[in-house]
Amino acid sequence: MTVDECVFCAIARGQAEASTVYEDDAVVAFMDHRPVTPGHLLVIPKAHAVGLEDLEEGLGARVWRVAHRLARGLRRSSLRCEGINLFLADGEAAFQEVFHVHLHVFPRFAGDGFRIDADWRLRERAELDVNAGAVRAGLAAPGQEGEQR
Amino acid sequence: MTVDECVFCAIARGQAEASTVYEDDAVVAFMDHRPVTPGHLLVIPKAHAVGLEDLEEGLGARVWRVAHRLARGLRRSSLRCEGINLFLADGEAAFQEVFHVHLHVFPRFAGDGFRIDADWRLRERAELDVNAGAVRAGLAAPGQEGEQR
Ligand SMILES: [Zn+2]
Ligand SMILES: [Zn+2]
Repeated sequence: MTVDECVFCAIARGQAEASTVYEDDAVVAFMDHRPVTPGHLLVIPKAHAVGLEDLEEGLGARVWRVAHRLARGLRRSSLRCEGINLFLADGEAAFQEVFHVHLHVFPRFAGDGFRIDADWRLRERAELDVNAGAVRAGLAAPGQEGEQR
Repeated sequence: MTVDECVFCAIARGQAEASTVYEDDAVVAFMDHRPVTPGHLLVIPKAHAVGLEDLEEGLGARVWRVAHRLARGLRRSSLRCEGINLFLADGEAAFQEVFHVHLHVFPRFAGDGFRIDADWRLRERAELDVNAGAVRAGLAAPGQEGEQR
């Protein structure tokens, strides 16, 4: 898929229908059309990026700041909102479906039907320490800094 | 619960055991001891904040930037990582369990057992527009800006 065919790029250009709640020079936020709960928002950079790998760090921070403000706005809105989830899916294995990076912001309330499930067993410190070492090695790996610019 | 009893404050002070992968003057990141997948990280501000309501906006952006770098680190690590999820639970209704704000960063791969479920039906534009209006009203509500400082 090219950028010309990207539905979120089309929304950012104002060329596709969306229920927009916020827009500035770099970021736009609009209602997810398949909401987990009423008020479910997507925050995107206007510039096309597939995911966290090609998203410029400063632009990502701007997306985050808008999401933070929207979360506070949801709490002050008339929509039912007893809690908030932020969720980002980077890659198909992580449930990404539109390949223009987007941060979900959605209200939660008792009985809203949203569920997550995983194997949350407590792990041994030794296992966690080994994995921490692997992450630190990844942080020091080539490409980690250079691609951030 | 007071800040003195907060387990994440204790980790931030170096007074509780954690498998830390990153630390600076304002942010610390460590392994979740009940990981969704091996490599599951939590990123927290060192200063206590319960959630998005009392988290200072600039500090939140710093937490985000660390999470972004960690996501890139996971992709460059030896851990299995075909995708990444970022997740934040703000409030008990949103599945928050430790009431010191934390951003989850975890690797994903085919067959990892993590599942989400919701009622994702497509909604009418009119309904989305009404909800967008409610969010915009919430963004303009008193307390939205003042508490960000
Ligand atoms: Zn795009
Ligand atoms: Zn704390």
